[in-house]
Amino acid sequence: MTRMEQARAGIITEEMKQVALAEGHSPEYIRQGIADGTIIITRNNRHTSIAPLGVGKGLSTKINANIGTSRDKIDLDTELAKLEVLTKYGAHAVMDLSTGGDIGDIRRTIMEKSSITIGTVPIYQAAVEAEALRGSLIRMTDDDLFRVIEEHGEDGVDFITVHCGMTLNSVERLKQEGRIMDVVSRGGSFLVEWMIVHKEDNPLYTQYDRLLEIAKKYDMTLSLGDGMRPGALADATDRAQIQELLILGELTDRAWKAGVQVMIEGPGHVPINQVEMNMKIQKELCKGAPFYVLGPLVTDIAPGYDHITSAIGGAMAAAAGADFLCYVTPAEHLRLPSIDDVREGVIASRIAAHAGDIAKGVKGAIEQDIEMSKRRKKLNWEGMFELCVDPDKARAYRDSSRPQMDDVCTMCAEFCAIKTVNEYLRA
Amino acid sequence: MTRMEQARAGIITEEMKQVALAEGHSPEYIRQGIADGTIIITRNNRHTSIAPLGVGKGLSTKINANIGTSRDKIDLDTELAKLEVLTKYGAHAVMDLSTGGDIGDIRRTIMEKSSITIGTVPIYQAAVEAEALRGSLIRMTDDDLFRVIEEHGEDGVDFITVHCGMTLNSVERLKQEGRIMDVVSRGGSFLVEWMIVHKEDNPLYTQYDRLLEIAKKYDMTLSLGDGMRPGALADATDRAQIQELLILGELTDRAWKAGVQVMIEGPGHVPINQVEMNMKIQKELCKGAPFYVLGPLVTDIAPGYDHITSAIGGAMAAAAGADFLCYVTPAEHLRLPSIDDVREGVIASRIAAHAGDIAKGVKGAIEQDIEMSKRRKKLNWEGMFELCVDPDKARAYRDSSRPQMDDVCTMCAEFCAIKTVNEYLRA
Repeated sequence: MTRMEQARAGIITEEMKQVALAEGHSPEYIRQGIADGTIIITRNNRHTSIAPLGVGKGLSTKINANIGTSRDKIDLDTELAKLEVLTKYGAHAVMDLSTGGDIGDIRRTIMEKSSITIGTVPIYQAAVEAEALRGSLIRMTDDDLFRVIEEHGEDGVDFITVHCGMTLNSVERLKQEGRIMDVVSRGGSFLVEWMIVHKEDNPLYTQYDRLLEIAKKYDMTLSLGDGMRPGALADATDRAQIQELLILGELTDRAWKAGVQVMIEGPGHVPINQVEMNMKIQKELCKGAPFYVLGPLVTDIAPGYDHITSAIGGAMAAAAGADFLCYVTPAEHLRLPSIDDVREGVIASRIAAHAGDIAKGVKGAIEQDIEMSKRRKKLNWEGMFELCVDPDKARAYRDSSRPQMDDVCTMCAEFCAIKTVNEYLRA
Repeated sequence: MTRMEQARAGIITEEMKQVALAEGHSPEYIRQGIADGTIIITRNNRHTSIAPLGVGKGLSTKINANIGTSRDKIDLDTELAKLEVLTKYGAHAVMDLSTGGDIGDIRRTIMEKSSITIGTVPIYQAAVEAEALRGSLIRMTDDDLFRVIEEHGEDGVDFITVHCGMTLNSVERLKQEGRIMDVVSRGGSFLVEWMIVHKEDNPLYTQYDRLLEIAKKYDMTLSLGDGMRPGALADATDRAQIQELLILGELTDRAWKAGVQVMIEGPGHVPINQVEMNMKIQKELCKGAPFYVLGPLVTDIAPGYDHITSAIGGAMAAAAGADFLCYVTPAEHLRLPSIDDVREGVIASRIAAHAGDIAKGVKGAIEQDIEMSKRRKKLNWEGMFELCVDPDKARAYRDSSRPQMDDVCTMCAEFCAIKTVNEYLRA
């Protein structure tokens, strides 16, 4: 039985209890959410070395960090250093998106070192291997693809991105839409190419039952990818995007019938005035399935600062119901992220998730801010640092510019409002 | 006649035409806004060396950067270097908040070098001078304060922050509220101290007409300060804050009657789910007067990253009607900002303002993103850099990690979705 089937049978598993404890909910709340599909626990049944990760309704917003090689940058040590940094700064999951080098080997090494949830996009490996085996990426067969998916399941991958909603029908709708950026998803663009060259529909859609069988075997979560996610503000919330979302909604129903857990992937580049609406339409069309969003970036003009553009969109998204944020680093649109970029990306994403959690009333969220404010009122600096998202940076900033009076900081010095008011108002 | 009086008399001035041109509106639109109080042009009538700055309804969101010494850090060269950086990265106004050294001299030097709008908080100088003259900050008299305000007007300061809504009545409400952080505004906390020690009400409130006379003489904008702005999420939108806002609304009416332009200052630390409401209540209670917000910071736990926490709040605020954003740097709560902190703060604030402008439909905003996306689709890298908020950083990122294929980047390398789709979908 998968955990979804167990939940429906009324069984509360050890995993459900662990997630309940971590989230401050009752085990029954978690069981019911899993039975409904509004909560997932993403952990491959072979990957028992990590803690189960709960994602969904009423739970704290989780964050994912992407790492991995590209053909231009193959350096496993650097990727492992990124893994260490992203774990230190509080990412809940890591996706290995490697497309360069021995992808299987890289993934297995990352999994061995990782203490957190792992996601992948199997089509990258399938395409790269097709090139080696058959001379071209595009010669990838459906069997190639499903063989790699099975391999990822066997290896213990917890969730896989599968762009099942990229169909000839949605491509037709895309052509009629007249987007500026067309398709910006790597997996999505590869499938477009594949469908056009082969004049055949996407095997992830036509052979969805085969996919469900594999997912079921390993209790592996399907992250239904949004190959049509907008890559420009001007393309946001268009018919191509919503067409794919409709298909993903149907595929959610089918996964649930098979006892397979799913989450839905979402945009992308979205103006502020469309963020909340995007969260709500997903929840409606996919019947409350957890929503995993990339960004959203709220402007296109800030390469070098897209951790900030996506922290804005991500915070608003989380507040409006997104359950899982994929980080975006300052390197987005420019290069493969460095170790520093990874740290900046994770921290920005954590800030967004936490700010969203406060707004949607997640248990234990505002309590952290209240405690911080109490320590701030007491000018208890060491106590404040302990609660910071990045204690090292906060401490280094203060140490770099020591005040003459020990209890204040150099911004206001003896004009410190907190100090003044502590002395007079409450005297 | 002040420009507000001219606008009411139906006169379209050269200044109004300049602002109209810069904003893509008709001169009549600007004139009507100034007559109504929903738009201000902030420029002291002696400060003709700078371009007039329009702030308010239908105009692009402006950003301000604070600089200035504290008693712990008095280094005019550094402050002038900050001025250069903040101007380069697009701040529309700079506030000199100096509290250390010869404050008058520092201000006049900054004004001489500045090509943009200048704001100040005169009470800082008045308090510091009282200490020198009378042995203690708190011995500042009302005449000391108004003499300094007059001096700022004479020097050509364009807008001054005056905490006129901090009254004995609002302090009483504060005490009853039971806040965690009480007062975090420097000027506000000083006035609390002053009122408690002197057992007298705030001279900026009791002698508001005297203030209006000075403002009128120099056509200097009053930025009605929010001494009660919340300094903790837990304190946001409480009775103390709204009590002060009510008073500021009344003072707005009185300023308008006198032909004096005002803007209102706003929070502070505010959870995401209260940001929009805070913008709307200000617009209602102050009859559409422009709103100048600090942050808002959407969480308290990220010292070192408060440019990000406030970019989130600032973007949402701008989208919901805020007209003017005061930047927050990574140094907030920790130290006086460095030159790098100033750059980071200005850029984060610009991103927030622009993202807000897209959402509220400001003329010319989304057009920048559309042009960026068109260049991105063509993989026209140099063209993209030109449109970036920080072309230098974007270029340096790409240059630090050169792809093997010239047209892509090292993130996806030959898996570049844009390249794939350009070749297949539109072939």
